[in-house]
Formats: sequence, structure tokens, C-alpha cells
Amino acid sequence: MADFSQIAKQFVQFYYDTFDDDRMKLAPLYTEQSMLTWEEKPFQGTTNIITQLQELPFRQVKHQVATLDAQPSDEQGSILVFVTGALLVEAEQRPMSYSQTFQLKRNGDSYIIFNDMFRLVYPAA
Amino acid sequence: MADFSQIAKQFVQFYYDTFDDDRMKLAPLYTEQSMLTWEEKPFQGTTNIITQLQELPFRQVKHQVATLDAQPSDEQGSILVFVTGALLVEAEQRPMSYSQTFQLKRNGDSYIIFNDMFRLVYPAA
Repeated sequence: MADFSQIAKQFVQFYYDTFDDDRMKLAPLYTEQSMLTWEEKPFQGTTNIITQLQELPFRQVKHQVATLDAQPSDEQGSILVFVTGALLVEAEQRPMSYSQTFQLKRNGDSYIIFNDMFRLVYPAA
Repeated sequence: MADFSQIAKQFVQFYYDTFDDDRMKLAPLYTEQSMLTWEEKPFQGTTNIITQLQELPFRQVKHQVATLDAQPSDEQGSILVFVTGALLVEAEQRPMSYSQTFQLKRNGDSYIIFNDMFRLVYPAA
């Protein structure tokens, strides 16, 4: 079986490729227990989370991952995934920095996203 | 009992106040199982973690928290804490942006840091 850092890498690539292609297709990664905090706003459950992602005020988006760290987060195979990167949105001339943290939990042979927290990171004054 | 967001706020204030005052005093927050990933480098256990924090190439430092998000991370009362902010280091004219993720786990009436991941966030090009 792949180790946690391999799983984290595969997850991050799949997650952002899918996000940038069609956010709706992220639905199978979430469950009714999943939590998303997007720029301070909390959402729970697949429908609420995917609705929020769909309603973001941009259609075209591209994530560029700059750093990716992972750690085991419990004894049951859960994985903490910590990303920093840049977000290129259609209407903006300049990319924005962001940071995002996920906790992946085992679900049979696969993983679901249990925790998801996203923030834009503004340059320090 | 305080809810997870209150605990996260208290933790973050205590953690950075202590870090900026005397990093050695963070030792009781870590255990032999605790993991730190600091700018890609992994450390495990109180001694390794505190040694790394002590060996950072600055003496005077001040953290300014910009955003703080928290979510429950399991059924046992663990808490995921996600911070973005600015770091002011003695030798630098300008603050640097950073992001940091912790997982706090219950330890009797208190909490310990099980996961800790830190990254500087550079402005997107």
C-alpha cells in the first residue's frame, strides 16, 4: 500500500485537477459528516459544500501547488494534508496566494475528505 | 466546557505568546508522538521538535495572527487549527506571511499538539 505522503500527493493532484476542470465532480470526495470552512464560512455535508464551491464568483480557475506537506493524523490511517499555492482566477490579472488544509479519512479502500479549510493569504504589510 | 473554536482561540494565543517569549516553554505542549513539519523538514518527539524551534536562525520573533479557523477532527474531541498570519523577525525589514496547521488531541483535561505543520507563504508571482 502507498504510504501517507504518496497518498497525499495523489490526492492533491486529483483534487485540484478536478476542481479546475469541474468542481461538481468533487462531490464523491465528501460525505454528510465532511466540514468545509471557506474564507471563514462553515459548511457541512456534500450538498452544502459542493453548492458553496459551485457558487464561488469565478468559473475558470487554476490552482498551482507550491508546497505540500502531510502527516498521519491518527492510528486509523487518517492523513493531514497541508498545501500552499497560487490561485489564478479568470477576472484577475495577478495570481493570489492561498493555503488549504485537509484531513483525509479512510473509507474502505479509499479516502474521503473529513476536514477542509481554505484561506487566501495576503502579503504581509 | 468551552467549545472547539474557543479552545482553538485560547491555544493560538497561548502558543504564539509563548513562542515569541521563550520557545523552550512550548515543550509541555508536545509529546513523544508529536510531529512537526517545519518548512518541509520532519521532526518527531518533544526533544527533536523543541531543538528545531530553538535552532531557528532568529532570536527575536513576533507572530501576528491574521486568520484562525478550527474544526473538530474526530469523535474524541480532537481539534484541527488552521492559522495564517505574519512573522516579524529581528533581522528582516519586512514581515513574512506564513500558514500553520495544528491538530490538538485531548490529554485528560488538557490538550497536546499531535500534528504541527509550518510554511512561509511567498507572494504569488
